[in-house]
Amino acid sequence: MAEVNSLEFLLTAAGERALSEHELSEVKRILYGNPAKELEIPAEASAVADGKDFEVKVFGIGASPEQTRPPRRVKVAVVQNAIVLPTTDPIKDQIAALHQRMQDITHAAYLCGTNVICYQEAWTMPFFMCTREKLPWGEFAESAENGPTTKLVQEMAKKYNMVIVSPILERDETHGGTVWNTAVVVSNSGKVMGKTRKNHIPRVGDFNESTYYLEGNTGHKVFHTQFGRIAINICYGRHHPLNWCAYGLNGAEIVFNPSATVGALSEPMWPIEARNAAIANTYFVGANNRVGTEVFPNEFTSGDGKPAHKDFGHFYGSSYVAAPDGSRTPGLSRVRDGVLICEVDLNLIQQIKDKWCLQMTMRPELYAQALADYTKPDFKPQAVYEPTD
Amino acid sequence: MAEVNSLEFLLTAAGERALSEHELSEVKRILYGNPAKELEIPAEASAVADGKDFEVKVFGIGASPEQTRPPRRVKVAVVQNAIVLPTTDPIKDQIAALHQRMQDITHAAYLCGTNVICYQEAWTMPFFMCTREKLPWGEFAESAENGPTTKLVQEMAKKYNMVIVSPILERDETHGGTVWNTAVVVSNSGKVMGKTRKNHIPRVGDFNESTYYLEGNTGHKVFHTQFGRIAINICYGRHHPLNWCAYGLNGAEIVFNPSATVGALSEPMWPIEARNAAIANTYFVGANNRVGTEVFPNEFTSGDGKPAHKDFGHFYGSSYVAAPDGSRTPGLSRVRDGVLICEVDLNLIQQIKDKWCLQMTMRPELYAQALADYTKPDFKPQAVYEPTD
Repeated sequence: MAEVNSLEFLLTAAGERALSEHELSEVKRILYGNPAKELEIPAEASAVADGKDFEVKVFGIGASPEQTRPPRRVKVAVVQNAIVLPTTDPIKDQIAALHQRMQDITHAAYLCGTNVICYQEAWTMPFFMCTREKLPWGEFAESAENGPTTKLVQEMAKKYNMVIVSPILERDETHGGTVWNTAVVVSNSGKVMGKTRKNHIPRVGDFNESTYYLEGNTGHKVFHTQFGRIAINICYGRHHPLNWCAYGLNGAEIVFNPSATVGALSEPMWPIEARNAAIANTYFVGANNRVGTEVFPNEFTSGDGKPAHKDFGHFYGSSYVAAPDGSRTPGLSRVRDGVLICEVDLNLIQQIKDKWCLQMTMRPELYAQALADYTKPDFKPQAVYEPTD
Repeated sequence: MAEVNSLEFLLTAAGERALSEHELSEVKRILYGNPAKELEIPAEASAVADGKDFEVKVFGIGASPEQTRPPRRVKVAVVQNAIVLPTTDPIKDQIAALHQRMQDITHAAYLCGTNVICYQEAWTMPFFMCTREKLPWGEFAESAENGPTTKLVQEMAKKYNMVIVSPILERDETHGGTVWNTAVVVSNSGKVMGKTRKNHIPRVGDFNESTYYLEGNTGHKVFHTQFGRIAINICYGRHHPLNWCAYGLNGAEIVFNPSATVGALSEPMWPIEARNAAIANTYFVGANNRVGTEVFPNEFTSGDGKPAHKDFGHFYGSSYVAAPDGSRTPGLSRVRDGVLICEVDLNLIQQIKDKWCLQMTMRPELYAQALADYTKPDFKPQAVYEPTD
């Protein structure tokens, strides 16, 4: 059975044929909150996207005008894409093809006025961790500071005056050549601002990532860019509310969640977790996931009792932006490459913080203590039993 | 414009008329995960519900069979209802009418085999905090240990062999007659097991609750009942992931979220937050919300620049149960009283913990430290700036 295009596509198609206008708008309000405005795509950007066969969508999420602050409008973009060449092609060719693909997509994003863009997790490679093989896959890892991917990203960032978040596999030569799952942040000046590592590593299904790298040791950095304070919560970290929380404590205004995740495992959770983080921490979230099915040369098993196979299941795309007021954009396609650009007014953050007061009412002392207690080997949970009298 | 019945009703109606069977099942999979099985409602229960005009729904969420443990099947119920009498009627009459209403609903739940039931927040009264008036509303508060509501609940619990969670407004006579927003837990033996107080108090829109009571001081109790380890996260606490987390750290298997919340404020967040908590903390959540519009005798303003008015907006019901595997039941109606019963196999919790490993990979030390740092007045967020060289 063919993969369906997107939830939004089906709902709209069904709604328009079978619901009243009021009913359809209620479905959309309950599912997506305050509707994100669909903005026009510049003709030049459409031409690039059509020519190279990827989707472009542009949305806007505003804020109320204020008397003493001008709006802080920033265009945030998330990218989703399939690998370009088969996983059996020479590594250098696979990387070069993805480098070219991302240049095309970034160019279209630039034509839409993007200020900050985030590529998907481990964007220069297939997501090979299902194989548990070390060669040849380890050869995709490169230096975060001066590998070929970072050099290319620096060129693009400067040329397009764009902050670029580039999630790669990092080889840390100064620490024994260790591999990390890392996002490199490049300023719109073209300078490398720094890197931040994936804090939580999965051991689930085909995601044998703990075979390759450990939990990150870079904390919860927030990058103060010209276009806002950004942070990166890589993939599996989205299942950890404490991780999302820590980026918020450090002042993040936009948190990206570059991901690689397949339908059967996580799809019903995908619209929930990043959006919950935007609500609970009162910041914007850009969540992106790769697209398509990746086939590997040797068979592997998935720890689920099923026979060995060579493919990974369907990466379902569905990238979106979530806002602190509980609203979100529609998702990109489940089956096509694409870039979603959302113009957000960062003033919305303080407005919603003042409205909902979730930071003021957080009681961090209570939870610092609860977590400290929990870490003790002889931790005693707070428990109430049936009275014996 | 009339309130729409429920999201599920519209989606199913639209889907059946306009989508293929495969497309409709994909919509449901993406929105709700692994489908909860709709179970038959005993005829006697249907008769009670029809006679008294409320909805009954019964679902089942299973787990894989295990070799060394039998299934741990428990029927969990959440109730949603409107107030019965106008807010201008004598207080005793208002309470008596709600007592009677809840006896009918609890009777129907019993006929469906319910083991644990949770009523909605402050279930014996209208949600009067919008008024900021102290009289007559304070008269709805009563002792958690031996007030008339607790006595009634004890009778029902024993009669029906059912654990009952009874969220009331508590008057604490041993501490100056202070008011608290409290859930009383009564064992199926009829004994009061204890009480737990609302940990986070809103100051948003019409929810002037901090005018009446403070943040709870009972921690994150988990009640070890015959039918599982339960906890109660009252209403606004659902916006606080740390609060949900702490109940999980203390071993909760089922967390109830008795709520009172209106459409314009929170409806798009309603399907997100409790469900995210079930996923992130690997437990079941039963979330319930009252129904209907409550009109008060004197006009009040809502802090939103709009003229004074006497009603509160529409409480949208939509109660549901969410499971640790990312699935959830459909919601109850947005407009009718009802009780949703879900038979869950608590073995699913450990199965999903072992699959996703979210507890193993949580890194509590990291976050205990992050929160401890954050509480310091001179806290320095982790920040990265543009390099100056």
